[in-house]
Amino acid sequence: MIDRSKPLATATRSDNELYELVEDFFATSFSTDNIVITEAVRRMLAAGGKRLRPRFTLLAVEANGADATQHLPLAAYMELIHVGTLIHDDVVDNASTRRGVNATAIDFGNKVSVLAGDYLFAWIFKNVTANYPHPVPNILASTLADITDGEVLQHRAVGRLDLPVADYTEIAIKKTATLFAASAECGAIMSGATPLRIKALRDYGMYYGIAFQMLDDLLDFVATEAELGKPVGNDLREHKMTIPLILALGSGGPDLKSAVARFYGMSSSSVAADEATVAVADLVSRVEAAGGLAKTREAIAGYVERAKMSLAPLGNSSTRAELVALADGLAREGAARTR
Amino acid sequence: MIDRSKPLATATRSDNELYELVEDFFATSFSTDNIVITEAVRRMLAAGGKRLRPRFTLLAVEANGADATQHLPLAAYMELIHVGTLIHDDVVDNASTRRGVNATAIDFGNKVSVLAGDYLFAWIFKNVTANYPHPVPNILASTLADITDGEVLQHRAVGRLDLPVADYTEIAIKKTATLFAASAECGAIMSGATPLRIKALRDYGMYYGIAFQMLDDLLDFVATEAELGKPVGNDLREHKMTIPLILALGSGGPDLKSAVARFYGMSSSSVAADEATVAVADLVSRVEAAGGLAKTREAIAGYVERAKMSLAPLGNSSTRAELVALADGLAREGAARTR
Repeated sequence: MIDRSKPLATATRSDNELYELVEDFFATSFSTDNIVITEAVRRMLAAGGKRLRPRFTLLAVEANGADATQHLPLAAYMELIHVGTLIHDDVVDNASTRRGVNATAIDFGNKVSVLAGDYLFAWIFKNVTANYPHPVPNILASTLADITDGEVLQHRAVGRLDLPVADYTEIAIKKTATLFAASAECGAIMSGATPLRIKALRDYGMYYGIAFQMLDDLLDFVATEAELGKPVGNDLREHKMTIPLILALGSGGPDLKSAVARFYGMSSSSVAADEATVAVADLVSRVEAAGGLAKTREAIAGYVERAKMSLAPLGNSSTRAELVALADGLAREGAARTR
Repeated sequence: MIDRSKPLATATRSDNELYELVEDFFATSFSTDNIVITEAVRRMLAAGGKRLRPRFTLLAVEANGADATQHLPLAAYMELIHVGTLIHDDVVDNASTRRGVNATAIDFGNKVSVLAGDYLFAWIFKNVTANYPHPVPNILASTLADITDGEVLQHRAVGRLDLPVADYTEIAIKKTATLFAASAECGAIMSGATPLRIKALRDYGMYYGIAFQMLDDLLDFVATEAELGKPVGNDLREHKMTIPLILALGSGGPDLKSAVARFYGMSSSSVAADEATVAVADLVSRVEAAGGLAKTREAIAGYVERAKMSLAPLGNSSTRAELVALADGLAREGAARTR
């Protein structure tokens, strides 16, 4: 997943203020009882990220007319769940870099990385079960179950050239979108929103999250290595089934399918680096030629529309306008990025 | 940690019935929504274990005159927390065997092992936050935080020849005893026990757990490889600071200390297998000569006494007698095992 180190250029002034609030909270208030783990988490936090999930929580609070500054810990837990999954992802993928900074697993070892993630999850649940009413703890637990379930499903989908779009979407919902949905939902719940508004904000987060994952997939084809913090075409190298590839396979001819099958059929370790770079560049061109990138932009725009439509129960407010702008930002970035 | 595949020979008929109840529950009722993860957990469960933690929950229920069969899911969650930590421990330690059966990480890969453990923890919390009142979810979350905190502390204590007994005890409490304490405590809470009885059962579990960990440490010196499911002296090979070693260092002369320092100062990979076996056998003899094993047996007996004394508020009952017998079993096993 991509996490650039700066807030989106499209963010409004108020939205940037929320970003600063979350940053300050992490810088001044976050610690656990274990200094090794606190240090591992602080380093992951210091490596950047847009803090989108906590901003969803705080915007959902504001959408209900409540004071965002009263809900900073809850917002922070949303980012920390994300951080915990990143720490464990470092172990899982043997990633050597993450957000352009050394991965936790490289600096601290696999042992501490697994334990740091476990501790972080347990610490979050300890605090949430002590301080938040039902159903907030249950939503967070269900979300973490979904994220890990989605990651297992994704792992099993590697190299499955016949993966249906519906299966891709289920994975994207579980591993990415549910946390955005939960972030907005819990902010709404804690600010006493009506069930209709809670659902509106959850739906918004869900659709936003699907579009976010699709944009992440698209950027693997069209962004630069500096922007990604990892090599371009990395998903292809790892034989992942991303949405541009799936959509291209759905409409492309037998040449595309056989080219993908040839590359995805080779074990990564048996392919020389130069050879892989040439093969990946070839696949990127073929996916684009088959319309995979254009169709992905359309799909992103579609989920952005649904996210915005979900917000109807909020009425007109500056917070709604900010949420709309955030979603529009995804569609705009998808449209602007070309090879 | 040692988990033999059969119930203790000292178990009473009723206690064996509880063991069967838990086994039946796992065999017939346990599954998650993810088949890969369900399979990973089932394999870990099938590899055996005494199911001590769920039996603590069920005995605590019975100690309050309630029906154990009504609390099987709660009891099962206690074992599953333990199973989750074992699955992650496989990744952490690169263990090649666990309970004599292939480790999860070997069969399924590190990636799935990390995710399976995460999913299992999240799935437990999803169920517990949905179905159990405060403070049960909070106790489970705090316990998992303690376990992982204790494991990080233990990891940092590797090779620290000056580790105080108090630090060892803190680690044993966190990584082992809190789960026994929580298992008994939650059973007591859910059967409507008085605060005094809840505390009695929690204290019992805590003292039992410390003695259990100390016996586990002792067995690494005196049991056979077949019993342990791993090589004898494995803790020494891994440069761990176990209680027999710590107590021996506290009373042994400079020869012992320099022998330990020499072996613990070598990187494990630089020592030939034969050489390590000779060095470990030498250290075992030196620890025994310095009284490390005898003092450990005394320490175990001391915690067993405290565990039994904690049960005073329960009055006289057959359940209390069973709990006493379980604790006595640890002291008896510690006393009986000689080299």
